[in-house]
Amino acid sequence: MDDISLLREFPIFARVGDADVRAFAALLKESRAAAGTDIMAEGDSGSSMHFLVEGTVDIIKTTPFGDRFVCATFTAAMHCVFGEMALMDNDRRSATVRARTDCRTLYVEREDFDAFTAARPLAGVELLKFIGVNLVRNIRKENENLALVYQALIEEIEGR
Amino acid sequence: MDDISLLREFPIFARVGDADVRAFAALLKESRAAAGTDIMAEGDSGSSMHFLVEGTVDIIKTTPFGDRFVCATFTAAMHCVFGEMALMDNDRRSATVRARTDCRTLYVEREDFDAFTAARPLAGVELLKFIGVNLVRNIRKENENLALVYQALIEEIEGR
Repeated sequence: MDDISLLREFPIFARVGDADVRAFAALLKESRAAAGTDIMAEGDSGSSMHFLVEGTVDIIKTTPFGDRFVCATFTAAMHCVFGEMALMDNDRRSATVRARTDCRTLYVEREDFDAFTAARPLAGVELLKFIGVNLVRNIRKENENLALVYQALIEEIEGR
Repeated sequence: MDDISLLREFPIFARVGDADVRAFAALLKESRAAAGTDIMAEGDSGSSMHFLVEGTVDIIKTTPFGDRFVCATFTAAMHCVFGEMALMDNDRRSATVRARTDCRTLYVEREDFDAFTAARPLAGVELLKFIGVNLVRNIRKENENLALVYQALIEEIEGR
């Protein structure tokens, strides 16, 4: 399967036409990671969004005490993107993405993404809305996690 | 000052041209809230993003134990938008926005926002990127809050 057919499977392109997907594909670079190595590392500066096209990855976060835990596992069949926050700001990666098996990703750099949304704004609107929906889902999940940990803290303090 | 001049002051329009701001302004509806009343309520379904053009609001959240706390206060001079998550999904409001003084907001409904981004996609890309940057900032803040509360919980459990 060629990369354009692979990309078509990603929900982020559901409302994007073939010509726009081809133009987007032309901007992508390829990255390979051997099993056990990091595709991106929490705390690093980042500027790219990745499409997982082969393999399985663990999303790993670090607690304030330095303990690491796997908060999600994605396979290529799930057609996930990650690193999309880096398209919005210059800040640090919020999690490590580690190859659980040998992996291949296709990735877009922020400046290429910005050039694409300027040249093909209707497609750009669709990509940005998809990313926005993902970000909102993450905020709602974080809100739930915060409520759970806060509740546990108060119960621990008060012996409720 | 007319509403278009007011809107021009909002950073969300920094990279949007005058004609696009005028077209956007034509979609906006007005809402007034007396001091002490809610502009939106946590848990309600929402479909609009608001521009605070007059007054001061408190952003209020509820803990899992039902306690309410003010997590931010915004004045019209800060040119803030709120409720932008509702442009991305159909889910519930994540916080209450309460008028601390008499307030006036201008708001856009999701279906009008979608029509705008379809009709003026270059401006749509700029608005969506601005919203995306805001959402990412919120995620990073939530991550910090989660780490702080988690750390307090572990210290409480272990007596560190």
